[in-house]
Amino acid sequence: MSHTASPPLTPDPAARERLLRAAIRLFTQKGYAATSVREIVEEAGVTKPVLYYHFKSKEGMYLTALRDGMEEYQELMASFSPTDEPADLQLRRACLSVYDLFIRYMDLMRLFHSVFYGPQQGAPHFDYHAVHNLLVETLRRLVRLGMDRGEFKDGDERAMTLAVLGAFNIATENDMIHPECPVGREGLDRTLDIIFRGLKTTANS
Amino acid sequence: MSHTASPPLTPDPAARERLLRAAIRLFTQKGYAATSVREIVEEAGVTKPVLYYHFKSKEGMYLTALRDGMEEYQELMASFSPTDEPADLQLRRACLSVYDLFIRYMDLMRLFHSVFYGPQQGAPHFDYHAVHNLLVETLRRLVRLGMDRGEFKDGDERAMTLAVLGAFNIATENDMIHPECPVGREGLDRTLDIIFRGLKTTANS
Repeated sequence: MSHTASPPLTPDPAARERLLRAAIRLFTQKGYAATSVREIVEEAGVTKPVLYYHFKSKEGMYLTALRDGMEEYQELMASFSPTDEPADLQLRRACLSVYDLFIRYMDLMRLFHSVFYGPQQGAPHFDYHAVHNLLVETLRRLVRLGMDRGEFKDGDERAMTLAVLGAFNIATENDMIHPECPVGREGLDRTLDIIFRGLKTTANS
Repeated sequence: MSHTASPPLTPDPAARERLLRAAIRLFTQKGYAATSVREIVEEAGVTKPVLYYHFKSKEGMYLTALRDGMEEYQELMASFSPTDEPADLQLRRACLSVYDLFIRYMDLMRLFHSVFYGPQQGAPHFDYHAVHNLLVETLRRLVRLGMDRGEFKDGDERAMTLAVLGAFNIATENDMIHPECPVGREGLDRTLDIIFRGLKTTANS
């Protein structure tokens, strides 16, 4: 009779990764509430016990998917401690690094937007605002640095931060929605350049 | 027996408006698929026949809600034909007028974002991209005008348009998500000012 008993489950990194990808895709397309554990395991090509072994529940999958991406983001953010370089270069590097990360985690970012803007569906709590605020505060500190050093005009700190953040947002949102017509990291870099140097000609400013 | 027959229905603008507001709120909070006609009429305090009389169906309500707001938006956009004024003033006026409209239709804009970024839910087709593109093209034409006249630097037209659009997006998205801490039309105006004149000091540009 022993051949009918399942072998004990062991960690399977490839199956875990396939499950996470399937869950992110289905949560984004169908919504969290409308996605069943059965659909996730079918799309990932594994059995239900494998899902429960790695994630305990649908809630567990959702939170793991978000936290996996956030770990790398938080590490990146922590790496932007101000240096002696010009503040505009530091702002540029921060925006482009977070842009690269966004592109690499595109499916997760789609889920992120879907839950953030989409209908409430009983998905477990995840602090999306904290993620956004971490970027805002990082950019604001660098704007402040540029102002304190006289590299930036002595103006409205919040408006300056919003100008830089706006360039980042429009590039990432465009490239998520219109991958066929991307702004790209070069386009983001050019947009930031305009914000640093101004749209108007000097004669006219 | 005649006292049991319902009187024939007639147009009731107040009931129509209450139904639209209830539908927009419920579609945004619960999602299009999860919202029932029964819930909409209960929230609006009317009977089902009143809903069917004015909108024919749930699909009809959804499309009417979106089209009502879009009519005013399209009229506003058509009003931005280039004038002799400086291009930056015209860009500023365009952004601030659309910002004002966005704030006035805030509930509809929430629904807009919810459907655009949220899960597919079988809601009838509505061309969200066309709405966005109308704004992009309006801003791009004004950027082009400024370049042709030598008021703006001879640079990357798309990047310049993205810089302006980014300021508009970040202000409207912030004020939708964080009404307790709004950028406001003054904040948007200051952000646009930074984009026109540049963040860096002249000595440093």
